[in-house]
Amino acid sequence: MPNYSEQLDAVLRALADPTRRAVVERLTKSPAVVSDLAAPFSMALPSLMQHLRVLEDAGLVTSEKHGRVRTVSLQSGALDVLHLWLGEQRTPAEHQADRLGIHLARTTPKEPT
Amino acid sequence: MPNYSEQLDAVLRALADPTRRAVVERLTKSPAVVSDLAAPFSMALPSLMQHLRVLEDAGLVTSEKHGRVRTVSLQSGALDVLHLWLGEQRTPAEHQADRLGIHLARTTPKEPT
Repeated sequence: MPNYSEQLDAVLRALADPTRRAVVERLTKSPAVVSDLAAPFSMALPSLMQHLRVLEDAGLVTSEKHGRVRTVSLQSGALDVLHLWLGEQRTPAEHQADRLGIHLARTTPKEPT
Repeated sequence: MPNYSEQLDAVLRALADPTRRAVVERLTKSPAVVSDLAAPFSMALPSLMQHLRVLEDAGLVTSEKHGRVRTVSLQSGALDVLHLWLGEQRTPAEHQADRLGIHLARTTPKEPT
């Protein structure tokens, strides 16, 4: 089990490629079979498989093979480590803006339904 | 001016290194002079300068030299591109959780002050 920092390294490195980000973007909507994932890219299947392996090693996606069809899914909570790190980087000014936002959400009257 | 995808590539690649993340973490608190940034790392100054250059090229930090002292600051809005991309990757279930959170913030009585 990689530690938090190693996990961040792997996730950030995996996402620092436009093809792999496009795959993640597609998978947030629903799982997909490999041939459908490959369709938008003018890319040989072995290259796509290599990208998928990087995403899988970083814990961002999982895949399952049924017969000859491999279905790829976004790992649940895949991006949590990144959300967590970004949350920790909030500057003092941003913390203040957060508190204002919560205050406004609580005190602004609800729109009539 | 790099486009959104190129900017994401650069930011993610820059952050996929624990030393560079530690520098960003330090700079969210306040600007710092290079020698102070170097202190926590057992690293030669030229290596740190190289990391700083990667962060600067990615638009994450800026630096200014006054006399012999170089002060490094987090670029304002440095991580916005990452917040934006992560926000776009919310799954349908997460959107539903967001709406619930806003509803709760609006309907939960305020604590007595």
